[in-house]
Order: sequence, then structure tokens, then C-alpha cells
Amino acid sequence: MGEPHDHHPALDALPLAVDTRPSVLDQFTIDETGRPGGRPRGVVHPTGLEEVLAVVGWARDTRTPLICRGAGTSLEGHLLARGDELIVDLSQANSILEIAPADFTATVQPGVTRATLNAATQHYGLQFTVDPGADASLGGMAATNASGTTGVRYGGMRANVLALQAVFADGTHARLGRAVHKSSSGYDLRDLLIGSAGTLGIITELTVRLHPIPEWLRSLRISFPTVAAAVDAAVDMLGAALPVSRLELVDAVSIAAINAYRGTAHAQAPALFVDLEAGSAAAADADEAEIDRIARGHGALDIALARTHTDRYALWEDRHNLFFALKARYPGHRFLVTDTAVPYSKIAGAVATATRLGAELGLEASVAGHIGDGNVHAVVPYTEATREAAQQFSDRVVRHALEVGGTATGEHGIGLTKKRYLREEHGPAADLMTAIKRTLDPLGLLNPGKVLDA
Amino acid sequence: MGEPHDHHPALDALPLAVDTRPSVLDQFTIDETGRPGGRPRGVVHPTGLEEVLAVVGWARDTRTPLICRGAGTSLEGHLLARGDELIVDLSQANSILEIAPADFTATVQPGVTRATLNAATQHYGLQFTVDPGADASLGGMAATNASGTTGVRYGGMRANVLALQAVFADGTHARLGRAVHKSSSGYDLRDLLIGSAGTLGIITELTVRLHPIPEWLRSLRISFPTVAAAVDAAVDMLGAALPVSRLELVDAVSIAAINAYRGTAHAQAPALFVDLEAGSAAAADADEAEIDRIARGHGALDIALARTHTDRYALWEDRHNLFFALKARYPGHRFLVTDTAVPYSKIAGAVATATRLGAELGLEASVAGHIGDGNVHAVVPYTEATREAAQQFSDRVVRHALEVGGTATGEHGIGLTKKRYLREEHGPAADLMTAIKRTLDPLGLLNPGKVLDA
Repeated sequence: MGEPHDHHPALDALPLAVDTRPSVLDQFTIDETGRPGGRPRGVVHPTGLEEVLAVVGWARDTRTPLICRGAGTSLEGHLLARGDELIVDLSQANSILEIAPADFTATVQPGVTRATLNAATQHYGLQFTVDPGADASLGGMAATNASGTTGVRYGGMRANVLALQAVFADGTHARLGRAVHKSSSGYDLRDLLIGSAGTLGIITELTVRLHPIPEWLRSLRISFPTVAAAVDAAVDMLGAALPVSRLELVDAVSIAAINAYRGTAHAQAPALFVDLEAGSAAAADADEAEIDRIARGHGALDIALARTHTDRYALWEDRHNLFFALKARYPGHRFLVTDTAVPYSKIAGAVATATRLGAELGLEASVAGHIGDGNVHAVVPYTEATREAAQQFSDRVVRHALEVGGTATGEHGIGLTKKRYLREEHGPAADLMTAIKRTLDPLGLLNPGKVLDA
Repeated sequence: MGEPHDHHPALDALPLAVDTRPSVLDQFTIDETGRPGGRPRGVVHPTGLEEVLAVVGWARDTRTPLICRGAGTSLEGHLLARGDELIVDLSQANSILEIAPADFTATVQPGVTRATLNAATQHYGLQFTVDPGADASLGGMAATNASGTTGVRYGGMRANVLALQAVFADGTHARLGRAVHKSSSGYDLRDLLIGSAGTLGIITELTVRLHPIPEWLRSLRISFPTVAAAVDAAVDMLGAALPVSRLELVDAVSIAAINAYRGTAHAQAPALFVDLEAGSAAAADADEAEIDRIARGHGALDIALARTHTDRYALWEDRHNLFFALKARYPGHRFLVTDTAVPYSKIAGAVATATRLGAELGLEASVAGHIGDGNVHAVVPYTEATREAAQQFSDRVVRHALEVGGTATGEHGIGLTKKRYLREEHGPAADLMTAIKRTLDPLGLLNPGKVLDA
């Protein structure tokens, strides 16, 4: 890397300015997976539909594959190049086209990030709820069907994207869905694009749902003697139809890392972080009491309650800093994060399996999970010496999830790293996916080799 | 009709008992649309996957198209035959295969109806929430992406089907999705099948979400001086993030019909019917007070509140009897029901447009709507003499909805009757739908001519 790169003659025909500086292109050869990627041929920065159409026309003419990217926060190798691709960086297609507060919708270009959108909608009392942690772009979030901590109440991208505009490999573009809350009109191409990781089309516009910012919020951190008790309490909260908007499990290893990093002295035990939303103070009081009752019924060791904005922020800071706490605890390590989702009744078993597998493989696994979605993230720090063990850990965690009826990826996507599980998870439906890919992208121009081999 | 029918020789090769009695087949030539259908070749009643596979194998060998049906409650001609089809009646594939209360899921065959499922889940404190009115089959509800009154809180079928098993036109079968609350694994074929009206595959099994039956419920009927005031109040309730689980608009004409049918004396004015769910009595009290405050702020004329099960049931009986009330008011008439959905800010305009168009065309239009979804049903009674006017009414209501960014069908589906609007609504995306249909069903064996001409 770093040496001059053969200039691809087709680049001269590109209707957009293309950057081919080796120092720039080398940035696209690495990502969170730690896998080496190839150096792409160049990178372009289209600002909207017309420029994307021009790039796709050029790609068809020159048979050059395209990799689209937004904020570049993929965790599963979605953006790694083989070497023959052009990177289509959509971060400059970043206009908020319309906020329609009366319709609870916003229409944006794909490069708009969720924080940017929320900054623009908050003075209407509205929020875009999907929160994967990173300040990802909305186009990228749609491409991976991202979700995160608020999925338990608001769902992920699939529940929050009403309509898309996309450019297809044949050079056409179309609107998929309309900006209404409900439709039974025709085939659901919108959801086909969502989660397709840029392999079926390029998202050039999104209309998303906005939700009211609740007036009354309460947050709780509740420690439990065991993971199983914490999970049972969480499921009982769901069973009581309480308006929880976040329901996060953090295991004892994670709490130890947080205590060390933040100087806190929380009980070194599994904990739930809970957000509760209500339409009035009285309703919030009543729901909070019910959560307290359920938690104590499952042997809660300690219940911390935050009612003010300041206190709530401080309580959640522990959870938000978890990854930094782990990085501090394991200096010089890389981190592998699993992303399985399982039925509720299998969550405690999935956490126990991750802990056990970590011990067997000589890795210190910690677990955090979006309980309301059954989505379990096991995190293992690794070095070059333990990279292979970390890969084995991931593989065995995924196979366990598949065995108990779960999915290899709850919210990160298949990308490159989880491709080997696609057929195991979907069986013959994987052939239908391939058939659809070949129908919509017969030349293999769109993010080839991701999700499917096709 | 009624005379003997040429026996199709291929029927002799059918691996299942086939009914070809004219009196039976003639039942399949009529439906709610009032359009005449052809008499199908026969009807079979498979009881599960293996028999469906056998029928599809036969259909491939003999090039005989298939029309699948559940409870037969389609409103848009989904089930009307041309005359060369075999009817695949799935109402005998009606086993509840598993209820998993700890996972909040149930797995059923497609012929199970929603009432049957709810009867089985209620003693676990769980409910299947999608309620389109009719006691439809779950397979049929998935095929049309049905929703109904509870969509505002729980979403429609798309939000409540976790996984499907389906048989495809090539004779294979596959599972689409897994029984987890979240996945980003591969292309979303589950949602491609949902709403495809039996044109892409035959649903042979569904795993659906169950939701806790709330402990605390309140119902309100609130009259307003105008439709616009009622809609504004409804949107403010959504904006206040109140836990409403039903939010129904009924116009003054509908109230008049209800009063005449039920002997009630409700103010002859537009009304909202509201259900409110809470986790505690105190929360319910608080939320109820907030709804009262919002309603009065929009000039509510009258607020009826029901807190007990008996009172709630009585209050909703008015709404549930609306269609019977209209039938009683217009004896000897048929009814045309529109199904557009529009952005919230366009609801009042859509209702006013329907009322005005009815008057222009000499029809007495009434309107009921699922406000939380922007889904507006205008109902016009018609006779043979006014059939043409009713069709014009429907056409102009749909075109108005499309002009303001809405959809031709919120929950009934395209079927046969709304096919003419598919391209108008979706533009070039209609070509993608056709391409997908041809990929998955190249011989045109599955419900041909529905949704698409393909």
C-alpha cells in the first residue's frame, strides 16, 4: 500500500471528479473487521440523484462495480473492496429535503446522519428514534436494516422508513413505497432494498417516520443476581405492556469494566438499563412503580432511578461508555462483536453460552444485549495471537444462535463476514435471494460479493 | 351457470380429491366486488405442506394456474377466477402448531383464523392484535398485508409476522425469516411475500407475534363539530405519545345510520372512537385525562367514557355495527368501500373530497377511517342503476389520494380491482415488480392476473 496505483483508463470517462490518490484510497482498505481489503480504483462523491445516475451509467458502460458508503460505520465488511471497484461516497448527498411535522415524517438524502436529522427535528418536538450507537448515515442504516437500543418500542429501520428512492443497476430509478403509514399496494420493494447492503440498488432518498419526543421519561439501572433473573425481569416488563423504550442487558464483566473506567462502584452483577416513556407524570410514576415491583420480584440487588434529564444522562453515560471502558481495559486489542438475535426464551442461554465459550477459548467475553429484540452482542478483545480464537468464538456463538432458532445477525447485516451462514440460516431461500440479485443486477455491478456470492 | 361443466382431463391426475360439482364451483364466481368471475375447474382442500407441494407439482405438470384462498373475505377481487384455474382452499390447513408464550409467538397453518388464534392465546394473557374486522384467515391476512383498527399501536401483518413458510411455483419450499424479533440477515423475502396476494408463493405456515393483553383499558367516544377538528385532535393524541391502541374516525352520516340502527341518540356529528391501554390504573387515569384535555381543546361536543369491560364493549358495538347499520339504511344496495391511505395532513381533505364527490355523483357517501394510519374508508351504497357512478366515485377518490401522496390501498390490497392504479402509484417500480414475478413464477401459475398483468 502507498505506492502509485495503475490508473484505470475508464476513470477518464467518469462524469464526476474522481479521487485516485493512493493515500485516500488506502483509507478504504481497512475497516472494523480487521480484514485487509483491496485498494479501490477511485472514489467519487455524488451529491444527489443526477450524479448517482451518471455514475451508474458509467459503471454499466465500463463494467466497473460500485461500492456505496455513507458514514462508513459498517461492522461486517460491507464496504471492503476487492480492488476493481469504484467507491461511491454518499456522505456529500446530505440535504434534509423536507420536515413535515404534521405528518410526522422527514425526507432526506442518504448521507444525512441520524444526529443531524435529530438536531433538525427536535424543535418540532419530534425525533428520529433509530439509534445504533454510531452517528451513522440514514442511507447506510437503511442498507443494513440498523436498529439499536430503541428497537423494543419503535422498531428498527424497517419500521421507520416509509419510502425510498433508489437507483438500479439498469440505470433506472424509482420510488419504493409512499410517505404514508400503511399500504397494501403491490410488492414490498422498499423492504427488499432495506437490509440489502447496496447489492440491489443505491438509495438516493428516504422518507422516515418521526416520533414525538415524550414529555415524561424515567431511567433505571437495576442489578440482578444472575443474567437469567435479569432476562426474566425484562420479559415480565414486556409482558406487563409497560412503555419501555430501552431495555438493555449489561453483564457483570461489562459492569466491572465500566466501574474501572468511570470510577463508579456499581454492584458487579448483571444489570438492566431501562428507559420508560409516559404521557404524563402520573403515568410515569405508576409505570415506574410497576417496574420496581417486577424487578424486586426477580431478586433485584439494587435499583437506581433517574427522573431528571441530568440524572438520566448520567445514568446512561455508563452504558454509552461501555465500549470505551472495554478499550481501556484491554489496551492494544481489537474487538470482535457478535450480533445474534434469538427468541426471548433463549436469551439467557445465549449469554451463558458466550461466557462459557469465551472461557474455553481463553478469551474474556463480555455481553450486552438489546433484550426487547432478543439481540445479544458478545464482545471479545483479541490480539494477533488470539485472532483465530476470536474467530472461533464468533463462529460458535453464531451456530448456537442458529441451532436455537435465531439469526446470525440482528442488526449489523451479513456483509462479507457472515456470508458463510446465509444458507445455514435460510436454506433454499438463499437461492431465491440469488435469483432476485441476478434479476435486478445481472452484471454484478452493485457491491459484488457482499451478502451473496452473486 | 349451474349447467354441467366440461371435465378438465388433467384433474384426473390430481393427487388430491377434487370437487368439480357446478353448485360448489359457482360459489367461487361471485365476491364482494360484484364482478362476475369465471367458474374455476375445481377446488381442492389441502391440509398442509405436503399436499400443497403435490398440488403445485401437478399444476406445473399440467400448466394449470392456482388461486389460493383462506376465509374468502377479500374485498378487491383477489379470488375471482378467469375459469382455467384450480381453487386451492386452505381453510382445512387450520392447525395451531405451537404457542410459545415465553417468546410471545405462535406458529400456525394458514387457514387458522384470527378469532381461533385469539381464543387459544388468551389464557396466556396474550393476543394476536391485527383486527381487520372480518374473521379472516392468517394466511389470507398475510397475503393482503391486512391491518385494521389496531394498526396505530401494533402495526399490520408486516409488523406482526416474524417468519413464513411458503411453497414456490418451481415446486420448492422455504422458510422466509426466523421466529426472532429482529434480523438483518439477507434479503427480506418475508415482506416480499406479505401483500403479494398469492402471486409469488403459497403461504403454508406463519409465525406471528403475540402481545400482552393490557390490564387497563379505557374507551372513549368523542363528538366534534367538524371532521377537521376530529382529525386535529387525533393527531394531537399521537403527538402527545399517548398509548392509544385504536383511533377511529366515524363521520356524521355514519353516526346517523348507527343511531337509526341501534336506537342511540349520539350527536349527529363526526366522532372519534378511542381505545387507550395502560400498565396501571393510575397511568390509565392520567392518560384518559390528557385525552379529555386534547379533545376539549379541539371543541369536543360530547365525550362518552367507558372504563369497565361491559361499558367498553357497549361503546364499541356502535362502531362494530356500522356496516350493518348502513346495510339496514340502504336495503337492496351493494356497497363499495374505498381504502386509500394518505399523510396525516391530508386526512381531513380526503374525507371532504369523498363527501363532495358523493354529492356530485348523487351517492350518499359515508366515511370511517383508521386515523392513526391515515387510512380512510369511504362507503357508498349503490344499485345496478348507480353502479357506474359508484365506480367513478371510487376512481376519483383513489386519484385524489395518489395526487396528495397517498396510496390506492391501505389494507385491502390491489387484487383485481385496483390494478389500474399500480403504475400510477409506483411508476417504474411496477416494472421491477413484474421482473420479480417473472423470476419467481415464470409460468404464471400463481393467481395470474392479480396485482400485475403478469
